[in-house]
Amino acid sequence: MSDFGNLFEGFEARAAEERFDALFRSPGLRIERIVSTGQAGDWYDQAHTEWVVLLSGSAVLRFEDEAEPRMLRPGDWVTIAPHRRHRVEATDMERPSVWLAVHLSD
Amino acid sequence: MSDFGNLFEGFEARAAEERFDALFRSPGLRIERIVSTGQAGDWYDQAHTEWVVLLSGSAVLRFEDEAEPRMLRPGDWVTIAPHRRHRVEATDMERPSVWLAVHLSD
Repeated sequence: MSDFGNLFEGFEARAAEERFDALFRSPGLRIERIVSTGQAGDWYDQAHTEWVVLLSGSAVLRFEDEAEPRMLRPGDWVTIAPHRRHRVEATDMERPSVWLAVHLSD
Repeated sequence: MSDFGNLFEGFEARAAEERFDALFRSPGLRIERIVSTGQAGDWYDQAHTEWVVLLSGSAVLRFEDEAEPRMLRPGDWVTIAPHRRHRVEATDMERPSVWLAVHLSD
């Protein structure tokens, strides 16, 4: 694993699939770059805390315990507690949505 | 501590001092937003690993064990091993330089 890189390079802007790249790992911690290109996601119910920030594009994030989804724009971050059910309902169709996720396990 | 926010809000663009905001803490982990507004830094020799990314502005990062400093632009990230001496030689004078740092201790 490299010890440097650029979050906004090394991906296709119109990829058919979401892309996941691990940037750093240590016991109990994984830092990951995610690039969404219009995909939505399934419901997640994670055993660990996740801290995540959207850095480009836009996304619609829904928490099961909230009435309305959150519209995320670049810079928006959220700490997701364990077992707080959530899903990404939509990501930007025009531009890649780059996320940085810090997972407190793996 | 809030469980959401925006990395690019909540600071003065022309502050005299660098600004540090803890966004998340758990045992062994601290996620911090740093906003530099033209400041340089002292040499750091940290006991813990730091993963850091520059998200806006620009910066010059020097490692003592490298001949040339690194010119950082938005998206550039680097994993800094424990006790690898480094300093920020300069940050952008025109725009705020927003960093996200993940510290593997505290």
